Amino acid sequence: MKYAVITGAASGIGAEVRKRLEAQGYAVIGIDLRDSEVTADLSTKDGREIAKTKALEACGGKIDRLLLAAGLGGHLDDGALVARVNYFGALTLMDGFKDALASAGGQCVVIGSNSAQMRPVDEAPMVLSMLEEDEAKTMDIIGDMHAAMVYAASKHALTRAVRRRVADWGAAGIRLNVIAPGPTETPMLQGVKDHPTISKSLEMIPIPQNRFATVEEIAGTIEFMFSDVAAHMHGSVIYVDGGSDAQVRPDRF
Amino acid sequence: MKYAVITGAASGIGAEVRKRLEAQGYAVIGIDLRDSEVTADLSTKDGREIAKTKALEACGGKIDRLLLAAGLGGHLDDGALVARVNYFGALTLMDGFKDALASAGGQCVVIGSNSAQMRPVDEAPMVLSMLEEDEAKTMDIIGDMHAAMVYAASKHALTRAVRRRVADWGAAGIRLNVIAPGPTETPMLQGVKDHPTISKSLEMIPIPQNRFATVEEIAGTIEFMFSDVAAHMHGSVIYVDGGSDAQVRPDRF
Repeated sequence: MKYAVITGAASGIGAEVRKRLEAQGYAVIGIDLRDSEVTADLSTKDGREIAKTKALEACGGKIDRLLLAAGLGGHLDDGALVARVNYFGALTLMDGFKDALASAGGQCVVIGSNSAQMRPVDEAPMVLSMLEEDEAKTMDIIGDMHAAMVYAASKHALTRAVRRRVADWGAAGIRLNVIAPGPTETPMLQGVKDHPTISKSLEMIPIPQNRFATVEEIAGTIEFMFSDVAAHMHGSVIYVDGGSDAQVRPDRF
Repeated sequence: MKYAVITGAASGIGAEVRKRLEAQGYAVIGIDLRDSEVTADLSTKDGREIAKTKALEACGGKIDRLLLAAGLGGHLDDGALVARVNYFGALTLMDGFKDALASAGGQCVVIGSNSAQMRPVDEAPMVLSMLEEDEAKTMDIIGDMHAAMVYAASKHALTRAVRRRVADWGAAGIRLNVIAPGPTETPMLQGVKDHPTISKSLEMIPIPQNRFATVEEIAGTIEFMFSDVAAHMHGSVIYVDGGSDAQVRPDRF
């Protein structure tokens, strides 16, 4: 049996990838706040431990595909919560599943964001404390900040954390990649659209294709990244954003 | 009829993509120095004009897929020749086929290189003169340099030139993307391996997967980039290099 573990499996991109991997014959273990094989809250250390333990039980310690899709949007008031889920929740599970991925010669795709490079957060204290994996310090820095100031930083730090692992994980026979979508027609984006003020952020970033991504486009790209054709793709950050990243910073890549 | 134009179609990655697009039903117009529908030398202005004119005739002014694969390696003595083919040859044809791509709602994939970010060439005079599209000035700067000093710069400038076009080309309904392979088992790589001293450059760059790319892996990724699944991918630089880019510069992406 081939096993796939998906965080954020109950909706949006996670749910769409779930459907596709099931069609390919994978036994999928979903992790989410609801409607999943494992219900757990990835914002807390206890929730992450529950998610890790139960998922490893369900797959017998062998994971062929891991998708870290659980994430909260920049429209929420609680920036600390967004950092806890988007960065510490994702990273704790990624590292917690490393041995199970190595056992299967498995692969991991992490959902980042094209926003990760749209703010000058490279040296932001909250990014550096995330990269130090110091959750308490990060929470002190974030305090009561709105998620609008945290979302991009959490995805930026997560992408760097993934890339810093490629030598070690590659030696263990694991592939590790990031997809960096632009705004995608998910329940999360609906939350942003419905917000009285944060919704305006969607008009700030030029999109040469003049539309948002569909869930199918992002899920289809993840499906490709998980395929054998992509066997030499490792540590890559795959932008699928209608050209926004290229337009905003053409000379960086 | 769907038309594909491929430069460098006679060997390596270009030949493999040709085979795959033909299997999908495309009429392929190959451009190369030999064994192709259009034989032309992309190092010269005349050769580029011949290539452009004959290919546009053959496809009736409508191009669905354009792959710019023609390129020379860093093992050649003649660095100026490498800049002429890799940068000016590629860019002249890309721009020359823009209207034909727009007529078809077409797409273009350009073969870059992961080496494009492995040297600090961002502000190198030859890169800036390439971006100014000043071939004479570029030739003055390069003089009799060995290609070892030009190859990465030519791919770096080409990638930036592509990304600088995304707004305009996106508005014209064209998708434009770059694939950035690491060393790939092609005749070009064989030339590098066979070189008495330049071959040592292959050991300088760490590859977490500890192997080179196969032609099939690069061609398969290009096939994906050309597919409808990738419809929202525009201006992206897709690294397929076994993790080298991520290991060398984990904090940039």
